[in-house]
Amino acid sequence: MYCCNQSIKISESGAIKMNSFSYNAWLQHTSPSKNLPEIESNGYEFATQECLNILQNNSFPFKENYTISLNLNPSLPPEGYKLTTSPDGLNLTIQGGDETGLLYGVYRYLFRLRITGNAADINESSVPAVSRRILNHWDNGDGSVERGYSGNSLFWKNGKLGYNLDRLKDYARLLASIGINQISVNNVNVRPTTAKLLTDEGLTDLVKVAEVFRPFGIKLIISVHFDSPVWIGGLKTSDPADDKVKQFWEEAATRVYKQIPDLAGFLVKADSEFNLGPLAFGHTQDVGANVIAKALQPYNGILYWRCFIYNCLQDWRDTVTDRPKAAYDTFFPIDGKFAPNVILQIKHGPSDFQVREPNSPLLGAMAHTRQALELQISQEYTGQQKDLYAWAVQWEEIFSHPFNETRNTRDLIGSEKEIEAVVAVCNTGDDDNWCGHLLAQANLFAFGRFAWNSHLTSKQVLQEWSALTFPKDTVSTITQMLLDSRLTYEKYNAPLGIGWMVCIHHHYGPSVDGYEYMKWGTYHRADSTAIGIDRTRQGTGYTAQYQPYVRDLYENLDTCPEELLLYFHRLNYDYTLKNGKTLLQHIYDTHFEGVEEVEAFIKIWESLKGKIDDEAYNHVRQRFDMQLENAKEWRDVINSYFYRKTGINDNKGRKIYN
Amino acid sequence: MYCCNQSIKISESGAIKMNSFSYNAWLQHTSPSKNLPEIESNGYEFATQECLNILQNNSFPFKENYTISLNLNPSLPPEGYKLTTSPDGLNLTIQGGDETGLLYGVYRYLFRLRITGNAADINESSVPAVSRRILNHWDNGDGSVERGYSGNSLFWKNGKLGYNLDRLKDYARLLASIGINQISVNNVNVRPTTAKLLTDEGLTDLVKVAEVFRPFGIKLIISVHFDSPVWIGGLKTSDPADDKVKQFWEEAATRVYKQIPDLAGFLVKADSEFNLGPLAFGHTQDVGANVIAKALQPYNGILYWRCFIYNCLQDWRDTVTDRPKAAYDTFFPIDGKFAPNVILQIKHGPSDFQVREPNSPLLGAMAHTRQALELQISQEYTGQQKDLYAWAVQWEEIFSHPFNETRNTRDLIGSEKEIEAVVAVCNTGDDDNWCGHLLAQANLFAFGRFAWNSHLTSKQVLQEWSALTFPKDTVSTITQMLLDSRLTYEKYNAPLGIGWMVCIHHHYGPSVDGYEYMKWGTYHRADSTAIGIDRTRQGTGYTAQYQPYVRDLYENLDTCPEELLLYFHRLNYDYTLKNGKTLLQHIYDTHFEGVEEVEAFIKIWESLKGKIDDEAYNHVRQRFDMQLENAKEWRDVINSYFYRKTGINDNKGRKIYN
Repeated sequence: MYCCNQSIKISESGAIKMNSFSYNAWLQHTSPSKNLPEIESNGYEFATQECLNILQNNSFPFKENYTISLNLNPSLPPEGYKLTTSPDGLNLTIQGGDETGLLYGVYRYLFRLRITGNAADINESSVPAVSRRILNHWDNGDGSVERGYSGNSLFWKNGKLGYNLDRLKDYARLLASIGINQISVNNVNVRPTTAKLLTDEGLTDLVKVAEVFRPFGIKLIISVHFDSPVWIGGLKTSDPADDKVKQFWEEAATRVYKQIPDLAGFLVKADSEFNLGPLAFGHTQDVGANVIAKALQPYNGILYWRCFIYNCLQDWRDTVTDRPKAAYDTFFPIDGKFAPNVILQIKHGPSDFQVREPNSPLLGAMAHTRQALELQISQEYTGQQKDLYAWAVQWEEIFSHPFNETRNTRDLIGSEKEIEAVVAVCNTGDDDNWCGHLLAQANLFAFGRFAWNSHLTSKQVLQEWSALTFPKDTVSTITQMLLDSRLTYEKYNAPLGIGWMVCIHHHYGPSVDGYEYMKWGTYHRADSTAIGIDRTRQGTGYTAQYQPYVRDLYENLDTCPEELLLYFHRLNYDYTLKNGKTLLQHIYDTHFEGVEEVEAFIKIWESLKGKIDDEAYNHVRQRFDMQLENAKEWRDVINSYFYRKTGINDNKGRKIYN
Repeated sequence: MYCCNQSIKISESGAIKMNSFSYNAWLQHTSPSKNLPEIESNGYEFATQECLNILQNNSFPFKENYTISLNLNPSLPPEGYKLTTSPDGLNLTIQGGDETGLLYGVYRYLFRLRITGNAADINESSVPAVSRRILNHWDNGDGSVERGYSGNSLFWKNGKLGYNLDRLKDYARLLASIGINQISVNNVNVRPTTAKLLTDEGLTDLVKVAEVFRPFGIKLIISVHFDSPVWIGGLKTSDPADDKVKQFWEEAATRVYKQIPDLAGFLVKADSEFNLGPLAFGHTQDVGANVIAKALQPYNGILYWRCFIYNCLQDWRDTVTDRPKAAYDTFFPIDGKFAPNVILQIKHGPSDFQVREPNSPLLGAMAHTRQALELQISQEYTGQQKDLYAWAVQWEEIFSHPFNETRNTRDLIGSEKEIEAVVAVCNTGDDDNWCGHLLAQANLFAFGRFAWNSHLTSKQVLQEWSALTFPKDTVSTITQMLLDSRLTYEKYNAPLGIGWMVCIHHHYGPSVDGYEYMKWGTYHRADSTAIGIDRTRQGTGYTAQYQPYVRDLYENLDTCPEELLLYFHRLNYDYTLKNGKTLLQHIYDTHFEGVEEVEAFIKIWESLKGKIDDEAYNHVRQRFDMQLENAKEWRDVINSYFYRKTGINDNKGRKIYN
């Protein structure tokens, strides 16, 4: 039997439709302006030009003699902005705490104009919750994007970085308009081509990319391989205790900062999924991180060090090892040992961007260590930009998870030594619409908005995005569909927080036992009577990593959120949920409902025909066909799997394939 | 989660140890000869040189004045040979029906000498059962080998064919010594690089390869893509009804045969696993095949047309479509419609080289169509040259399968319009030992011997191979281990003929549901009480494709061979086998036994230490470690799967992971 080539394919892109509806995203060009206001630029040429760029593509009903003034205001914090309309409504002042803040003020002003249409009533000031709002691009030198579902890389092609600087400028504008201020440009799984970014050869092109992003207030991060001293330094070891290795990193940092003095720092995935790290040399993580961090210190560079460490060669027969425990077990004991410019990058959940997880117990747990929260915008496990999935809803849930009896995760964001950076794996590529699925632009937008202010609601954010993108009379419909999309997807996916029932490697579509007997530590252990793993202190003890209040919440079947039941407990299929249904009947019901809800989405979408851009309409309509097929596949595989395993019928007698 | 790159890897080969024990295979060089006999060559220089080559590397106890005479004998059929020792034992005459027959006589003589050590007693004549004994190499232009487990291609490297003609000559000798007389040099899944073999550019190197193989009586076959008229002809269609397409094939044939007049022909995989074929243009297979065949006819070229056609995009919910029926349904109705130089290449079983299958009902079914039997030497589903697996045993079983009440499959071989060619997917690559696993050389050897004479027993063939390869005092031990290896592997594999419980794509290791919900038509439909598909006339009707005697044999639970029970029937786990065990207990028992038998192999192998070449010993010892790990994985996954599904304990209380 033929094996379809599973390697990442680099597709041929068609011609980019620049300035198309899809391409312009939330910076729509509605109609050329007829009456541009006067702008008092005060020397802030870049912000002025950005302001003009957008004003001239949108016909706003400005009053006569309406003017705009741009200024810095030293009393505002860096990146903060303030919009003030004069009492007579004829002048709008945009102030920034610095030039980036001024630029943010410009974009915000334009957002407000687009949403309200009323220039006379704009008074607003804002400061970001965290000073690091970061996108990680998992882009490879060959132009492929790991877990990318939006075409090929915007950055790389055939080993060359920055092959299309014009498009990168448009990209930078999109990112700046939502407050992103740092980006990594190469995959955390660094390969030889992108490892060269640390060399003079590799830096030549990186400098050009930095120049594109710099005026937009966006700094670059380089993903570096822990084994770089061997790969590109010609050394025989990358042992961080070795003086030559220390010297290698110092020289690398000097070389890079000479060319890009404002580089944000390095990002490292070490001791994680076959990437070398300090463990290989018998060291704890801090020893590995600190040698690189110290090299960055003279240049105020940050070392982002990922915490996604677990045994990816576990024996499925081993029931003692429990993957979710790994990150905490690795890092909590070395709290306080990291250099001051190390930020640990912690995935929001202890698994891996599943459709439902508790928050990582590591978040906020280390009182003496700087931390970043890592999200995923790319829909690796959530429909791969074929299925509609509004991350904003899940992120709002994540922010609302309790940290202890008095604080939730949202409260940690922006606190020093708690969460001082928000990072996400990006969902963009060289598709005309940037994100594969047009509506997945909402995810990129929402990330930026939440990274700026996690106190927003997903409804606010999605409404804002819809209003910026689509005509007024479609906004509430589209917003509601996005809000619903997360639970719909979850309904036809793995039930009750158990996760992982996906096709191996590519992670689209269901395979209940796909990872069940593999080495990745991802098991549901379903048998004919029960499913799940007991992660309480009576079981693997995972819950003990949480603050006592949260631990008890999850351990107690009465207080454990039902949507997370199977993350924490092993339960019989006849366990009764609060709504009176058995666990198995819940599985059947939700999987039937998931498909029905996708069918409803299609009807709703069809009601928008003619109201929105035709091409965009058709594109999304086609994605819904894919989603419906996927939802049915999930429904039928999951239901058949459990029916075949238990022999228990659906109590409504619906079709389950036996 | 990181996706390990699943694409075929091209490893860096170490230096080839030419003339090593492993490299010489069954043409061992035991010790330099001290007394070479006189050879009367009668002008047959190539055969004489081959004879000398081998004689001088082995010290045989020839009597003084012993001579060898080489001759053609027109009364012998082509490729036939006759070995005659004079009554005084001092002369050995080797006669061939043609020069290839003479060469075969030479190799056979040397085999006899090596095995018996006695030159005075050699009288033997032999004629091959079929005139086409063929190897298919699934080698890609980039040097990878599809389903290859022995390193990279012997033929291709970086897009270049014939990069090492010296090694190809050694390879040609190995193949000729076992009677192989045709080989295809590129994968049936033709890609652009190898599609170029039909162009002047591609032919340049193919000519050189043909020159290497020609003196050994081996003709080349080119695998061609059905869409070649578009790929390389610049046409807009490959529709066989199009005159330009007809012309393309005529020109291609003319071009190729001008350079290689003795080319055996073309091989095509059409309408099979995403390869284009006549179906795409609304034609039956004969229409597609005949247009190419007619182009080959003026040059006596054969078109080998594979019958591996089935719906590889089946919906698992569709219980009407039954993949094993596909080949017969496609080809039987068009029996007699193929051009006279088309040979249909039929896989031995209706599935795909599984560890246990019935024979294909298509074999021998078409009274008016030429047919080839296709086997697989490469161990795609049978341990991938990590696990020991002697195909000879399975092949002997295949030959012994009944065709009707009076004949078995063996009886069809060599009959016109029955089986007139025997083909196998080869297991060779550029590993030092050619076959990945040293003992897998036995599989290549056995294929040649069986293609020559399917009336041999697997014991005869394996004994012969062992005696040619290893010292005398190890032969019976190694032979017995090989004979046992097939059943041992089957014991820990998918039970009772059900097949397919393998990890998807790469096909090594167990995954019971791996293909269960996929599009490949490979389902076991196991639930908590039963497993299997009813393929009788009460079920999918597959059995109706057999001759009535065989159909009834399989349909009747009392006469259906138990090892094929689950190929034909859906049975409850408590179904009682003839030995009194339940079906489930049989699964448990065989899976425990399989591991125990691998452990026993290791002990047996360790008893050979010091008796055989050290490097070979260690190599095989290491392979057994891999096999043991694999066998345990199979045991535990299969047993856990069924235990979790049924809740029924092993009656001996052995460890099953729940």
